[in-house]
Amino acid sequence: MISGFAIGHHTADGEGWLTGTTVVLTACGAVGGVDVRGGAPGTRETDLLDPRALVEQVDAVVLCGGSAYGLAAADGVMTALASDGRGLPVGREPGEVVPIVPAAVIFDLGRGGVFAHRPTADFGALAYRAAKATIGRSTSDPESGCVGAGTGAVAGGLKGGFGYAEATLSRGDDDVVGRVGVAVVVNAAGSPVDPESGTLWSDHRGRLDRPDSVGRVALSAERGRAGRPFNTTIGAVLTDLTLTKAQAGKVAAVAHDGLARSVRPAHGMTDGDTFFALASAHHAAPPEPMAAVGLLNRLLEVTADTVVDACFAALTAAETRGRLRAYRELAGLR
Amino acid sequence: MISGFAIGHHTADGEGWLTGTTVVLTACGAVGGVDVRGGAPGTRETDLLDPRALVEQVDAVVLCGGSAYGLAAADGVMTALASDGRGLPVGREPGEVVPIVPAAVIFDLGRGGVFAHRPTADFGALAYRAAKATIGRSTSDPESGCVGAGTGAVAGGLKGGFGYAEATLSRGDDDVVGRVGVAVVVNAAGSPVDPESGTLWSDHRGRLDRPDSVGRVALSAERGRAGRPFNTTIGAVLTDLTLTKAQAGKVAAVAHDGLARSVRPAHGMTDGDTFFALASAHHAAPPEPMAAVGLLNRLLEVTADTVVDACFAALTAAETRGRLRAYRELAGLR
Repeated sequence: MISGFAIGHHTADGEGWLTGTTVVLTACGAVGGVDVRGGAPGTRETDLLDPRALVEQVDAVVLCGGSAYGLAAADGVMTALASDGRGLPVGREPGEVVPIVPAAVIFDLGRGGVFAHRPTADFGALAYRAAKATIGRSTSDPESGCVGAGTGAVAGGLKGGFGYAEATLSRGDDDVVGRVGVAVVVNAAGSPVDPESGTLWSDHRGRLDRPDSVGRVALSAERGRAGRPFNTTIGAVLTDLTLTKAQAGKVAAVAHDGLARSVRPAHGMTDGDTFFALASAHHAAPPEPMAAVGLLNRLLEVTADTVVDACFAALTAAETRGRLRAYRELAGLR
Repeated sequence: MISGFAIGHHTADGEGWLTGTTVVLTACGAVGGVDVRGGAPGTRETDLLDPRALVEQVDAVVLCGGSAYGLAAADGVMTALASDGRGLPVGREPGEVVPIVPAAVIFDLGRGGVFAHRPTADFGALAYRAAKATIGRSTSDPESGCVGAGTGAVAGGLKGGFGYAEATLSRGDDDVVGRVGVAVVVNAAGSPVDPESGTLWSDHRGRLDRPDSVGRVALSAERGRAGRPFNTTIGAVLTDLTLTKAQAGKVAAVAHDGLARSVRPAHGMTDGDTFFALASAHHAAPPEPMAAVGLLNRLLEVTADTVVDACFAALTAAETRGRLRAYRELAGLR
């Protein structure tokens, strides 16, 4: 996990439920940016991330199922943060704070069988608690697959999910100047699979074998059954570098390039595709200032590649749920 | 009230409370736009109002106290609308809808005495019920003053509040081509009072007498006591004309001109000033299409003037609450 961040899930899987909430919690605040590129976004507190706006520190970002109803999960995260005394100080007493909690949602309504089973404020509070429990206790990556906001995700007819990947920005062999992590919920109208080869678009490192003809036929048939009306891929880029709000917004924008490579088509009118970017400034100052175009360009390049890796993690960790079949199963790779 | 709209308040005034929620409910949907101009906004579902986004019909707009915590009121409005079967259809069954409910908040935390007394989802549901009760039953304007989201409002050290005003777009004497209404919550860092004359900046029609020297001294003293750290003026422009989303966004943008005239300074870093615009298309098609620049320009001009009238209504209907003294009382106009 990137220094300064923790990720926690709350998952509701079974008995008519197939949805959840993921909280990206900062250890002590992070500079934030956002870029909304899809035609059907569901968002909260994105306006304050404009570089011209006042607030500089984000406390947490919430990724939720439940379409716009799921924005309620952010209420629970706000209440939990305030109980811990965290947020923007707005009064004379220590507890008089307003936590800064931007949020975005995916469409997964009805996928568990019951339309009204969607995240509430309690989902946010529980995911917050799960994230908080890992702060300072673990450096392991968060669980990927059918967890948190990825529980009910679908991508081009295949089971989608939550994915996480990391990368290092280095100068030469050992001189690490910063780290990048990407949390993503792949829930796209477009397909994650190259119809020619049956491989995942996001497998840019060639990690998986090419499916055989049986697998390719199964994948092609599933693709034909797609056509879910609403979708949306959402995510958050985390870095321990020091960024301005405007730079964080630029990182969030270029994160969408990774999505464009992982799912085709992306950013359509029924996708609300949204990426946040958070910078904890936990890394020691890099040898050149981030304002140097070269280092920022390198961060942008690594961000897009890491979004592809995170999409790959989501799609390969996803497991079949009912009629929503996972790539590994269809491709015969398990 | 403008045809196609209803306004309802829920007010919590007393016993440690001084906050509330106002719901602008559409009778059967409206095209919506938004413009955020302040440095400290608290908003929800504003990204989907981008003209490039899919959703064309807004079900309701929520104006709330409670800073970002107050965004929870929109959860209650969403649930109530869904119970009534209203929202964007997203499934096969009639009740499978996602209500479209953008929201913005003002900062009023702690003004009633208890920091944690802020709007919840129930506030939204109750304000929704109040608005719904007036649909088709009344053409009277909504109550102004210390009600709904204006309950805890403060403007430049004076008691602020909720205000409403209307105007008619006509060609010649009788040829009404459309109507405009403005709902506003005046809660500004800047002052609503001209320090030279002691009159309200928003009294552009010269409705009130100029305060005498005693009144001017009292107003000046109150101005000096200002300095609340967070503020925000929010509102909604309603029209029965037919607008595109882009035109609604332009109307919301020019609404801020009315605020700029009513409060000085406006749009600062601790104001989250935000206006929505909603068009119900209930008026018969005007004699020239709205695409004609002349008619749209006239709508923009009337919108800005009506925002000034609505600010005037808010500030003159406001009543003293504890140490938050109203303009009428200080100016000796009661």
